[in-house]
Amino acid sequence: MDARALWQRYQNWLYFHEGLGLYLDVSRMRFDDTFVESLRPKFDKAFADMAELEKGAIANPDENRMVGHYWLRNPDLAPTPELTQEIVQTLEQIEAFADKVQTGAIHPPRASRFTDIISIGIGGSALGPQFVAEALSPDFPPLKIHFIDNSDPAGIDRILTHLRNSLSSTLVLVISKSGGTPEPRNGMIEVKKAYAGQNLEFAHYAVAITSVDSYLDKLAQTEGWLARFPMYDWVGGRTSEMSAVGLVPAALQGIDVRAMLEGAKEMDDATRVADVKNNPAALLALSWYFAGNGKGEKDMVVLPYKDSLLLFSRYLQQLVMESLGKEKDLDGKTVYQGIAVYGNKGSTDQHAYVQQLREGVPNFFATLIEVLEDRKTPSPEIDPGVTSGDYLSGFLQGTRQALYENHRDSITVTIPQVNARTVGALIALYERAVGLYASLVNINAYHQPGVEAGKKAAAAILDLQKRVVEVLQKEKSELSLAEVAEKANAADQIEAIYKILRHLHANHRGVMLHGNLAQPSSLKVSAS
Amino acid sequence: MDARALWQRYQNWLYFHEGLGLYLDVSRMRFDDTFVESLRPKFDKAFADMAELEKGAIANPDENRMVGHYWLRNPDLAPTPELTQEIVQTLEQIEAFADKVQTGAIHPPRASRFTDIISIGIGGSALGPQFVAEALSPDFPPLKIHFIDNSDPAGIDRILTHLRNSLSSTLVLVISKSGGTPEPRNGMIEVKKAYAGQNLEFAHYAVAITSVDSYLDKLAQTEGWLARFPMYDWVGGRTSEMSAVGLVPAALQGIDVRAMLEGAKEMDDATRVADVKNNPAALLALSWYFAGNGKGEKDMVVLPYKDSLLLFSRYLQQLVMESLGKEKDLDGKTVYQGIAVYGNKGSTDQHAYVQQLREGVPNFFATLIEVLEDRKTPSPEIDPGVTSGDYLSGFLQGTRQALYENHRDSITVTIPQVNARTVGALIALYERAVGLYASLVNINAYHQPGVEAGKKAAAAILDLQKRVVEVLQKEKSELSLAEVAEKANAADQIEAIYKILRHLHANHRGVMLHGNLAQPSSLKVSAS
Repeated sequence: MDARALWQRYQNWLYFHEGLGLYLDVSRMRFDDTFVESLRPKFDKAFADMAELEKGAIANPDENRMVGHYWLRNPDLAPTPELTQEIVQTLEQIEAFADKVQTGAIHPPRASRFTDIISIGIGGSALGPQFVAEALSPDFPPLKIHFIDNSDPAGIDRILTHLRNSLSSTLVLVISKSGGTPEPRNGMIEVKKAYAGQNLEFAHYAVAITSVDSYLDKLAQTEGWLARFPMYDWVGGRTSEMSAVGLVPAALQGIDVRAMLEGAKEMDDATRVADVKNNPAALLALSWYFAGNGKGEKDMVVLPYKDSLLLFSRYLQQLVMESLGKEKDLDGKTVYQGIAVYGNKGSTDQHAYVQQLREGVPNFFATLIEVLEDRKTPSPEIDPGVTSGDYLSGFLQGTRQALYENHRDSITVTIPQVNARTVGALIALYERAVGLYASLVNINAYHQPGVEAGKKAAAAILDLQKRVVEVLQKEKSELSLAEVAEKANAADQIEAIYKILRHLHANHRGVMLHGNLAQPSSLKVSAS
Repeated sequence: MDARALWQRYQNWLYFHEGLGLYLDVSRMRFDDTFVESLRPKFDKAFADMAELEKGAIANPDENRMVGHYWLRNPDLAPTPELTQEIVQTLEQIEAFADKVQTGAIHPPRASRFTDIISIGIGGSALGPQFVAEALSPDFPPLKIHFIDNSDPAGIDRILTHLRNSLSSTLVLVISKSGGTPEPRNGMIEVKKAYAGQNLEFAHYAVAITSVDSYLDKLAQTEGWLARFPMYDWVGGRTSEMSAVGLVPAALQGIDVRAMLEGAKEMDDATRVADVKNNPAALLALSWYFAGNGKGEKDMVVLPYKDSLLLFSRYLQQLVMESLGKEKDLDGKTVYQGIAVYGNKGSTDQHAYVQQLREGVPNFFATLIEVLEDRKTPSPEIDPGVTSGDYLSGFLQGTRQALYENHRDSITVTIPQVNARTVGALIALYERAVGLYASLVNINAYHQPGVEAGKKAAAAILDLQKRVVEVLQKEKSELSLAEVAEKANAADQIEAIYKILRHLHANHRGVMLHGNLAQPSSLKVSAS
């Protein structure tokens, strides 16, 4: 296609949202009109599915749940007046709480203000808050946020060590639907011990974001924590940024949560249009379907040309991959669906792996995110008439062009600035695109059955550890791994037992391994 | 394969490095002996190629360069005594410099100590230093490092705003082979202006890491910067962590660079063994070849179960993808090679996209990285007899098992701790694996021809911008985009011109756009 034809195609397919100043360009995806036409029936169904879902239909049949994250930014859409009211009131409570914390009306026992936040959560309870903090937190926020998003003891230590002199002015958010998910539970227990170690009463520093009447909710109530905010069973973890999960940390950092909600609402309105060409989420879903043949045959590489959007691809990994990565479709057919997502930021990544994108395995399509505003103040000139922002803009255009010339397709999303409204809109855009794409390929985007397998396997390992330790504590003599396995009634799990013992040994946990480490079967083990 | 047979396979293939305490487990890659045998001739050639490369052969034929990053950790291997001496002396100079900065013998004009570092570099001049800082920097390092690794004005502003009150005690590293790469050059120019804005003489704060006699080297010499350290043409950016590029920032942060070099040297020795089964890098290359059919058909998902190794996958993206992502093989045949790499950390990512890994598109193999030591101090119990580290360890085992059960292969690398020696060893392990794999698939791992295309296209855009601005400044009346294009002698580049103008307009750069933004061809443009 020559330059003029491409320019025509660009204009034909250009989507522009006037209110948000957002552009979406899918002209460099090489689909043709026949392809678009062929997807029309699927899109008609997808739009109808989405309308049902927004009205409160059970869109997550496996878990018998409604899917209501759209209601969070437009409470009037919620299927009952009670729900509408709850959403509105929760938002007001969040803002009132954040205001009191920032002004010092709510303050810790031994300080006039809270200065820091430890946010404990994993998955959707970490990725949204992390992305939004990186994108929108002011340079000097009223409270500085730190995340514990894993069960890594050294990682927890690093945060607690950094904060050891300011723990007495640090607020703790514990974000967990049930309170039972091990990572946030472990983080909470360890953080609680750190407060106790400084004779600080944890309850005076702690806030729970959890389901009403969950284990965590009751704990917070009994212990008299500072505040409790609700998580809803109709909001999935990966779409929870506009619920208390995302709004509480954002508001505490001084981020304009109303603007974020407003941006999402505007985008929700725009992506409700039942016309592919005039619906940016449908244009994304169409492009994804085209790129991967409706089977995820190509990876989605996400390159925001803006440092503050660095974590967007990590956020999208969960939103896209957990939603779309499914073994079965809605008819129970085995389909192995999904789209792999990765990326960091441009132009930085051009110096990392654009070599492969341009020349190597053609197993991806790119999404370039352009931000029109370079910075808040005028830029100095680097060369006569040229700023560092012009370079960044040139790199984006150059990479898009170099990829296209080599038959690598790309999408470009353009926003005027990174602000609460555009970030809200970006989140909403991708949420809807994922929902529509899921309809196109006939899967349930709102459950995650595969996560259970790993959890169960992990629980079985911990159970096995207990049995193995009991065996060793009973025995006086050294045992071989096979003997331990037999005595623990786990003769077929020697390998798992070996790994458990190797880990306990390395951490001086009362287990001694003797023998040749290179030959596990030669090892003898005893309680030390 | 039943549990006993798997345990046997595990032991058969287990690689253990006694000195480093490092294990490599490829038993969950489903290759068989016939496959291994079939690769023997390719491996014989790969081992021979590698031996030649280490002796100083021109291993990067396109650029007529030696490939000598192995010499950095064993200078006696360098092909001439002069090179050996230069490597040894540079290391001594780096240590002496870091020592003087830390003790205050070298200090800024208006303060007794340097407290912070701004490191300006991109690609290999950022990814290694960032990975190593995250993995190894002490909790309270003698100098705190901040990175400018892009040409994003807002990103540069964020760093400079954070440091505005400590700029007078901030050391600046400018890392660039030539000094001409736009991103570090732009960063340097903007940072220099910030120093000037506080009446600080930049030269008293600046250190150059660059090729001898480069533009940057001469600038640093003329202006009398604090210090200059060499970059070598025989060390590629993506393998430069053990050169001054990585060692200067590491040493300044108090990281034991000798231990890092020693760990790399031990691994280099181990990966020089011309026997697949007893060479961990060969085992990796074998596994990669098996997974992707020697064509990169599967993505490499890297999951270190340790927060401090979060950036390892980003580091590997460059090392693997820029090295292996090639259009042509060494015979000039079009091959579109490469392996896509992504990942963050476990168990966090289990709550993000392990759903897709376990159940969705089977387009990947996983690499799990296990760290045996949980933390430096004893762990509190979460449940009776169980620590947060036991959970993390259980999650790793559980995920490996859940993936395997669903026919998703994985590699497990186990290290005793995250320390300078093991991080050096990990870097060396993957460097060698990439080199061997490149031989297996017959490509040049040491050039990056595809990066040029994007750079040239970007330069053309900046040139076009200048012409367009000239046209507008000459004209009195409003022009359509097509008219601007014609007057700029770029009739076939209306789209690029439109984007340039949209960007200039958004940044109040003397360009006005009028008309319907949704319809670019309706726009009129003038100098404002």
